[in-house]
Amino acid sequence: MLKSKSEIRVRYEETDQMGVVYHAKYFNWFEVGRINLLDDIGVPYKQLEEKGYFLPVLSCEAAFRSPAFFDDRLIIEVKVHFPSFIRMKADYEVKRDHNLIATGSTVHAFVSKKGKVVRPPAEFNEFIKKDAG
Amino acid sequence: MLKSKSEIRVRYEETDQMGVVYHAKYFNWFEVGRINLLDDIGVPYKQLEEKGYFLPVLSCEAAFRSPAFFDDRLIIEVKVHFPSFIRMKADYEVKRDHNLIATGSTVHAFVSKKGKVVRPPAEFNEFIKKDAG
Amino acid sequence: MLKSKSEIRVRYEETDQMGVVYHAKYFNWFEVGRINLLDDIGVPYKQLEEKGYFLPVLSCEAAFRSPAFFDDRLIIEVKVHFPSFIRMKADYEVKRDHNLIATGSTVHAFVSKKGKVVRPPAEFNEFIKKDAG
Amino acid sequence: MLKSKSEIRVRYEETDQMGVVYHAKYFNWFEVGRINLLDDIGVPYKQLEEKGYFLPVLSCEAAFRSPAFFDDRLIIEVKVHFPSFIRMKADYEVKRDHNLIATGSTVHAFVSKKGKVVRPPAEFNEFIKKDAG
Repeated sequence: MLKSKSEIRVRYEETDQMGVVYHAKYFNWFEVGRINLLDDIGVPYKQLEEKGYFLPVLSCEAAFRSPAFFDDRLIIEVKVHFPSFIRMKADYEVKRDHNLIATGSTVHAFVSKKGKVVRPPAEFNEFIKKDAG
Repeated sequence: MLKSKSEIRVRYEETDQMGVVYHAKYFNWFEVGRINLLDDIGVPYKQLEEKGYFLPVLSCEAAFRSPAFFDDRLIIEVKVHFPSFIRMKADYEVKRDHNLIATGSTVHAFVSKKGKVVRPPAEFNEFIKKDAG
Repeated sequence: MLKSKSEIRVRYEETDQMGVVYHAKYFNWFEVGRINLLDDIGVPYKQLEEKGYFLPVLSCEAAFRSPAFFDDRLIIEVKVHFPSFIRMKADYEVKRDHNLIATGSTVHAFVSKKGKVVRPPAEFNEFIKKDAG
Repeated sequence: MLKSKSEIRVRYEETDQMGVVYHAKYFNWFEVGRINLLDDIGVPYKQLEEKGYFLPVLSCEAAFRSPAFFDDRLIIEVKVHFPSFIRMKADYEVKRDHNLIATGSTVHAFVSKKGKVVRPPAEFNEFIKKDAG
């Protein structure tokens, strides 16, 4: 199981008039965590796109246990696995001081620039074999 | 079942470098639909907050069938029901030219300004009785 | 002078924990006004891009007289002129109930897909001649 | 002159379909820089709000020399001064590999929770005296 941890700090811009972070903003943080995980395994997302691979989001979800506040330092933990040869699933946990405040997931397909589903680049083979093989 | 339809037009700001709308932006549109539905049933969300009721998002999800593009005129259809006496669930369909391009849902609790779960205001009684009664 | 009026309704997502709209969001509304103005003069921005013309923002500014609030219906007035043969300037006024609450401007260049400054398409000639001729 | 440097990494969410960062997003980064500067001088913005002081943006501007791209690591340099006893002005430079790609500024007032202009808290006295004294 591929794992990564990222720290983010809540921006004022991410709050709403309820005084907490607006729910949709968590998906931006999930992105931060996912991008860092791809860095960690040696396939930075920017390079993927340069090679013609894209990882659009097919579905996404989040559940909120307690609010996040402006200026919070939060840990975004990501675990990635490959439920099939052409899908990547990322599961997220958002923590403040070791307390879980939110969870979520995103499912991605590997697609070409034209939006066609494609086989992932070779760099993913080893991970995919373990999960989906 | 409470229903509402809203039209939105995709803003350039909502696109990303894949040339499509960034997934998290759909939750902003869901909000537009939800706000309009609350208008339709005579309890505008702004008034709810003025009376001390808040409807934070407990969980949310979306699934994307085909991308949305800049300048698209999209219909956001919302259906709301009350799975319990203190919860509201909204289901969304996003359509372009009668084609379903995305679905989603959000679950909300009624809470006070201090974040305590409370019984919804009387205006909701009739709807809640039908669903959760 | 080219003019256009658009109405927007403030989204909850656009507020911050000060209970007002976050300043950067006004630029999204300016975009809405600008896009509508381009529609009005028969050169929708989407078509411009399809023909290979882009109008990136070279500079932007905004000044805030009084805050905008969630659920406000605001009028975005835009005036566009062409200070030179390759520049477009848009001036914005944001009004609530005929009261000016904010002003702003954006300056744009006409560029090609590769980012090279280009002469605007013919549809702009008449307007440019009047202003910059 | 108060100065601070912050590093940000461009999020995918901040790009648009032109393949560059959408102009309004720079103001979010300016916020990051400004927040860090306030940390550096010992008056974290969060504490300011807890004491009843708010620093809304009265005006803002940005000028773009060259685009920012997804995954760029950018340095946000901020300088703050006090043009009067109740105003704070922040000037920003955005750099990539020591090259200036954008500049900007924001002007702020010190206000109370109710939006009334107030004298800044004592922590600012020394800085204000130097500039506006």
